[in-house]
Amino acid sequence: MLDIKVTKTTHPKEKPQDESKLGFGKQFSDHMFLMDYTAGEGWHDARIVPYGPWEMDPATTVFHYAQEIFEGMKAYRTADGKIQLFRPDCNANRFNDSADRLGMPPIPPEDFVQAVKALVDVDRDWVPHSDGASLYIRPFCIATDVGLGVHAAKHYRFAIICAPSGAYYAEGLDPVRIYVEDEYIRAAPGLTGFTKCGGNYAASIKAGELAEERGFSQVLWLDGVEKKYVEEVGSMNIMFKIDGEIYTAPCVGTVLPGVTRRSIIELLKDWGYKVHEERVAIADIMKAADEGKLEEVFGTGTAAVVSPVKELDWEGKVAHISGGHIGELTQKLYDTLTGIQWGKLPDTKGWIVPVE
Amino acid sequence: MLDIKVTKTTHPKEKPQDESKLGFGKQFSDHMFLMDYTAGEGWHDARIVPYGPWEMDPATTVFHYAQEIFEGMKAYRTADGKIQLFRPDCNANRFNDSADRLGMPPIPPEDFVQAVKALVDVDRDWVPHSDGASLYIRPFCIATDVGLGVHAAKHYRFAIICAPSGAYYAEGLDPVRIYVEDEYIRAAPGLTGFTKCGGNYAASIKAGELAEERGFSQVLWLDGVEKKYVEEVGSMNIMFKIDGEIYTAPCVGTVLPGVTRRSIIELLKDWGYKVHEERVAIADIMKAADEGKLEEVFGTGTAAVVSPVKELDWEGKVAHISGGHIGELTQKLYDTLTGIQWGKLPDTKGWIVPVE
Repeated sequence: MLDIKVTKTTHPKEKPQDESKLGFGKQFSDHMFLMDYTAGEGWHDARIVPYGPWEMDPATTVFHYAQEIFEGMKAYRTADGKIQLFRPDCNANRFNDSADRLGMPPIPPEDFVQAVKALVDVDRDWVPHSDGASLYIRPFCIATDVGLGVHAAKHYRFAIICAPSGAYYAEGLDPVRIYVEDEYIRAAPGLTGFTKCGGNYAASIKAGELAEERGFSQVLWLDGVEKKYVEEVGSMNIMFKIDGEIYTAPCVGTVLPGVTRRSIIELLKDWGYKVHEERVAIADIMKAADEGKLEEVFGTGTAAVVSPVKELDWEGKVAHISGGHIGELTQKLYDTLTGIQWGKLPDTKGWIVPVE
Repeated sequence: MLDIKVTKTTHPKEKPQDESKLGFGKQFSDHMFLMDYTAGEGWHDARIVPYGPWEMDPATTVFHYAQEIFEGMKAYRTADGKIQLFRPDCNANRFNDSADRLGMPPIPPEDFVQAVKALVDVDRDWVPHSDGASLYIRPFCIATDVGLGVHAAKHYRFAIICAPSGAYYAEGLDPVRIYVEDEYIRAAPGLTGFTKCGGNYAASIKAGELAEERGFSQVLWLDGVEKKYVEEVGSMNIMFKIDGEIYTAPCVGTVLPGVTRRSIIELLKDWGYKVHEERVAIADIMKAADEGKLEEVFGTGTAAVVSPVKELDWEGKVAHISGGHIGELTQKLYDTLTGIQWGKLPDTKGWIVPVE
């Protein structure tokens, strides 16, 4: 149990007037949670303070060796004004998996969740009111040693910041075109694919930009060894509905264990779908499309919930999906998951954690 | 040609009194070079200012997505008091290769070198005087957008800081024990192995710490696909002298193109050695050791110049090298390269750039 010292701002910012123009992660709430780590002493000085800049020495290791990890989650406002979180324990556990791989200190999951709840409570008026909008929560941790030696740092800062963010689909769930990346990779066995470390994202940027220039929304990543099996799409997990059954890459070290991914798999199994968490070759996906068996394709992630795919381009071949429309199952998953998150549907799974 | 505005400190720090206690990258000189980039405008505001902290918003992208790259180089003081650099153009070009892979803006190599020279000139009194000590120079670039969207940033900061650093081998060139890493990897084709991006180092820390706990100095990285071929050692390139010939991994995307590596290859070829830049299986290295043909093994890098290896441990097998002593060729390479760098030997290769 953290002893969190709260210092409230004396200069609250003006809240966004037009929630339809929020965008994603562009403005931040009045406060932030901070906690520092010193080797030998552990985590200390848990505090909520006014959001503001940090003074950083240019030789701080995070600028040089990228010892940095993060999480992404949301706070939702229900119709009757309650504020709630979705499976924050999953984020807390994944944060610690990331920390372990990056040589960083873990945070007790109950402390992680307590910190998120405490900050969201202080900034509860920042949780948007409009449909589909939410308070995006970004817990992250950076190495704060000052010096250029390459080793695990002895000092870290854990922070949580919050950004009121708009509905991901301002104009409805618009299916997207995806480029199957055959040059760059995102991960390989023995590297950091299963973590949310900064380096994974830095390495992915170039392929994303090149795909965007060619008119695609995202890239689909293939495995790093054979460049043969599908892994993720952009920074989301990806699922394929083929001949009535669901296929998605297994979480075996190269694929991020998405909270949305596992929640969707649970829902699909409840609904009687057969879900294959196994390696699927891109060639087999394209073949299924040719044979008319590739019924739906969608990305899954916290930001978008689900992102329907209408087209896959791989080595000059094109697969068209669902006639360019969102699939029936994709829509049902979106409606169910967002229904639970925003409190419109009963939480039969025990996924909701209220912020009181 | 940059127009560099110089603002000198009014509070110069005390210079280190005891150069034998400098260590590596722990204290910094009086000034730093800064330059900022804005999309559409390019690089601007080149300046040398007193070394000091930066004010950073917690949502700055470098803390989250690790768009960050760096270089490492040194300034050397000669016996007659001149200050000189070693192949700074190589660092400038590699910096741009890193920038391209990470989706970051390049810097004209002549501007990069000009900035390094200008800063070293201002802080020339910080270049150590004692044998083997030098001014370590750290040019680096970080993304400075504020916001949580994952894309190439539109704002960057390029900085150069300098750390007077001690002789790498305070007690002579002591050969080290190396653990051949068979679980974690450093790079794979299509990723960022050939760049000096922060993410490469973050991903390498855990294996390094585990090896250290077991009494090894560094890990030897195998290729990321088959875990069969040798690539690098710690954050250095690695070379093997087998039966009179030299073997080292080729720079094909997964291996850092070291400036020391290429300089040593040039020297070796001048001296008549056959140098194989080709994939070498760790099994063949161990076999050569068994047969008494593995004559010398050494890492190469800017910090250490050369680092002799006395032992390789791979899957329970142990190779002992050079009877635990530094090899004759390793010593000759060290003496020649440091001789050129510190101005004790004539620069017949055109590698030295004076700072006037």
